[in-house]
Amino acid sequence: MNLSKTTDDILLREDKDGAVYLTLNRPDKFNTLSEAMLSELQRELDAIAADSTVRCVVIGGNGRGFCAGHDLREMRANPDKAYYQELFRNCSRVMQSVVALPVPVIAKVQGMATAAGCQLVASCDLAIASQSASFAVSGINVGLFCSTPAVALARSISPKRAFDMLVSGNFIDADTALEWGLLSAVTDDDDLDAAVADKVEQILSKSPAAVRFGKSMFHPQRQMALADAYDFAGNVMAENMMSPDASEGIDAFLGKRQPTWEQPGH
Amino acid sequence: MNLSKTTDDILLREDKDGAVYLTLNRPDKFNTLSEAMLSELQRELDAIAADSTVRCVVIGGNGRGFCAGHDLREMRANPDKAYYQELFRNCSRVMQSVVALPVPVIAKVQGMATAAGCQLVASCDLAIASQSASFAVSGINVGLFCSTPAVALARSISPKRAFDMLVSGNFIDADTALEWGLLSAVTDDDDLDAAVADKVEQILSKSPAAVRFGKSMFHPQRQMALADAYDFAGNVMAENMMSPDASEGIDAFLGKRQPTWEQPGH
Amino acid sequence: MNLSKTTDDILLREDKDGAVYLTLNRPDKFNTLSEAMLSELQRELDAIAADSTVRCVVIGGNGRGFCAGHDLREMRANPDKAYYQELFRNCSRVMQSVVALPVPVIAKVQGMATAAGCQLVASCDLAIASQSASFAVSGINVGLFCSTPAVALARSISPKRAFDMLVSGNFIDADTALEWGLLSAVTDDDDLDAAVADKVEQILSKSPAAVRFGKSMFHPQRQMALADAYDFAGNVMAENMMSPDASEGIDAFLGKRQPTWEQPGH
Repeated sequence: MNLSKTTDDILLREDKDGAVYLTLNRPDKFNTLSEAMLSELQRELDAIAADSTVRCVVIGGNGRGFCAGHDLREMRANPDKAYYQELFRNCSRVMQSVVALPVPVIAKVQGMATAAGCQLVASCDLAIASQSASFAVSGINVGLFCSTPAVALARSISPKRAFDMLVSGNFIDADTALEWGLLSAVTDDDDLDAAVADKVEQILSKSPAAVRFGKSMFHPQRQMALADAYDFAGNVMAENMMSPDASEGIDAFLGKRQPTWEQPGH
Repeated sequence: MNLSKTTDDILLREDKDGAVYLTLNRPDKFNTLSEAMLSELQRELDAIAADSTVRCVVIGGNGRGFCAGHDLREMRANPDKAYYQELFRNCSRVMQSVVALPVPVIAKVQGMATAAGCQLVASCDLAIASQSASFAVSGINVGLFCSTPAVALARSISPKRAFDMLVSGNFIDADTALEWGLLSAVTDDDDLDAAVADKVEQILSKSPAAVRFGKSMFHPQRQMALADAYDFAGNVMAENMMSPDASEGIDAFLGKRQPTWEQPGH
Repeated sequence: MNLSKTTDDILLREDKDGAVYLTLNRPDKFNTLSEAMLSELQRELDAIAADSTVRCVVIGGNGRGFCAGHDLREMRANPDKAYYQELFRNCSRVMQSVVALPVPVIAKVQGMATAAGCQLVASCDLAIASQSASFAVSGINVGLFCSTPAVALARSISPKRAFDMLVSGNFIDADTALEWGLLSAVTDDDDLDAAVADKVEQILSKSPAAVRFGKSMFHPQRQMALADAYDFAGNVMAENMMSPDASEGIDAFLGKRQPTWEQPGH
C-alpha cells in the first residue's frame, strides 16, 4: 500500500490500486469542515480530478463522528457577511467537486454525519454506513438553517423527508437513511471496512474508461430536459462504444471469457 | 388561546403562540374547495404571508373527511371554459401560496384526502395523518383527470406511484402514503392532535428567523440547476449567519446553554 | 380477440377492446433491441399514437427474459461511431415515444430486464412484474456504461440507487424494484397475466378522453417550473372539464349512477 499524507495532517490520503481513501482527521473536533479542512479537501479533489490513474474515491472520517459540518467556533470568530459568503462558496465548491469528479465517490460513514457532514454523504455517488451511524441537518438548533446542505439533501431524498429533517434537526438512524435512499448500504459496525473494500473492489473490476464515461454523464443529465438528456447520453454512449474496453468487453462476453481492461496511465 | 373566525364560517382560524390553525369547515360537504373556500384560503394565506409574527401554519379539516377536492356541483353549474380556467388558476394559486409561504405548513389529515385535497397534502411542507386517513386522486372516476393535483403529487412521490394513483383513482392508506413519502408521520387516530401539537411545538422552539430563511430557500432551490441552487442557498445562509439568532444559537451551543431567540413583532 | 401480427414476427401485436399488446418475440435472443426490433417498435408506437381508438398499451416479452437490451453482436459488427450515435438515437426515440404516447403504457415483466430492457421498464407509465423477474443495467460488465438507460432510471428511482445499479451492474429482484418505485406491482409468476389484465380493464373502465388528457399532461409538466406546470395543467384540466365525459361523469356521480363514456372512433 502506498500511504501518503497530505501536507496537513487534518486530511489523510491513502492510495491503493487506483482507489484513493481520503480520511477526515480531526477526531477531537468531529472532523468539522474548517477553512483548512475545506481547503485540503478541495486540493485533493482537484488533484484526483486531474489524475487519470485514479478510479475510485472513498471519503471517511476518523474517530466517533464522520463529520459534524462547519466549524462553529471558527465561524463565530469571523462575524462578516463576505467571510460567510466565501466560506459557503468554498464548501459548495467541495460538494460540487465530489459530484463532478470523473470517478465514483463513496462515503464511508462510521458515526454521526451532521449538517454539511450529512450534505457530504448526500453528495457522494454511493454511501455505506455502519449500523450505529446517524444523520441530521441540525443547524436549525443553533439558529442556522442548513440551507446549502438542503441543496444536496433535496436531490437525494423525497421533499417531505428532507424538509422535516431540516426544520426539526432530528436524527435519523442508518436503517432509515437506507430506506429513504440517502445510503446505498448499511453494515454491522465491525463490517464497515470490509463492505467498503468490497464495493471498491467491485468498481475496480470494471472498465476504468466505462466507469469514467458513466460518472461524467450521470449527474449532468439529471439536470436536463428528457430530450436533451437523451442526446447527451447517446453521444457519451457512442464514444464509450468506440473505446477499446467496450470492444474487448463485448467480445469477451460473446466469447464467454473474462475481459481484460485497459489500465490508465500504466 | 386567541380564537378568531374568519368572516365566513367555512374556514376557521385559530391563533396560538405564533401558530395559525386553519380548519376547513364544511364537514357536510367533505370540506370541498368551493370558490368561496378557495377565496377564504387565499385571503388567510395572504394575511399570514404578510404577518411576521406567524411562525407555523396547520391546515386541517372538520368532520369525517379532510378535503374532497373541488365542489363538483358548483363546477357543473358553470359550464364555461373561462370559468374553469379561472377556477383552476385560483386553486393553483392557493397551492403555490402554501409552497411560497415564509413559514412551514403542516397538513393535519384526519380522514379522506381526495383530488385537490390530496394535492393540498402534497403541497404542504409536512403532513401528519391518522391511521384511518386515506388518499386518492380520483377525478378520473368522474371523467376528469386530476391534472393540477398531478403537479404537486409528481413533485412529492415517485412517478410510477403518482401515475398509478392518477389513472386508477385507487385509494392508498396512511401507512402506504408514509412509505411513499407523501406523509411525514402517521399516528393512531386518537393521537393526531397531540402529534401535530408536538410538531408545532418543535417548530416554535426553533429560531423564527432561521425557520423563515429555510422555508424561503427550500422550495425555490429545488427548481434550480445545482450550481445556481448552491449560489442561492449560500447567500441565504450567509444572511442567516448575520442574524442575531445565529450568533446567539452558536454561542449558546458552544457555551452549553439554552439559546434565547428573537421573537418577531414583540 | 383481434390478433394481428406485424409484418415481421419479432414483434407481435394483439388488439383487444382498445388495448394493444406488443410482445417482443425473439425469445432465443432474450428479445434484444436489435435495429430491426427498434424499427418495429417505433413503427407500432407511431401507429398507436395516430390511432384514436387505442386506449392502453402493454409491452411484454416472450420466453424467459423480458428484454436484454441492445444486440451486442450486431453492435460489434458495426464498429462505427456514426452508427452507434444513430442506434442510440433510435433507441432513445423509442423510449421517448413510450413517454409521449397519448395513452398509458404498461410494462409486463416476466423475466430479466437488463440494460435498455430495464430502461424500457423505467420508461413505461406502469410496470407489473412477476416475482421471479429481475432488473439490472449491466452494460458496465462489458465495458459499456448504460448511459441512455441512466436517463430513464434516474427519473424513476432515487439517485444513489440508480448509480449503484449502473456502476455495479448488480441485479435487483422484483420486490426491491417495487420498494424503490421502479415497479407498480409484483405478482406470483402464475398471476402475471391476470394482474396485467386487471390493470388494463381498470384503465379501459375510465373515460378514454380523460385518460388521454392525463397522459398528455403528466410527463411534460414534470419538466417544468412549478408555476409553468400549474398553468399548463390548469389549461389541460379546463379542456377536460369541457369534454362530454366530464359532464357525464360528474352528473353520474351526483346522480349516484354509473357513467357512460364516449367511445373514440366508434
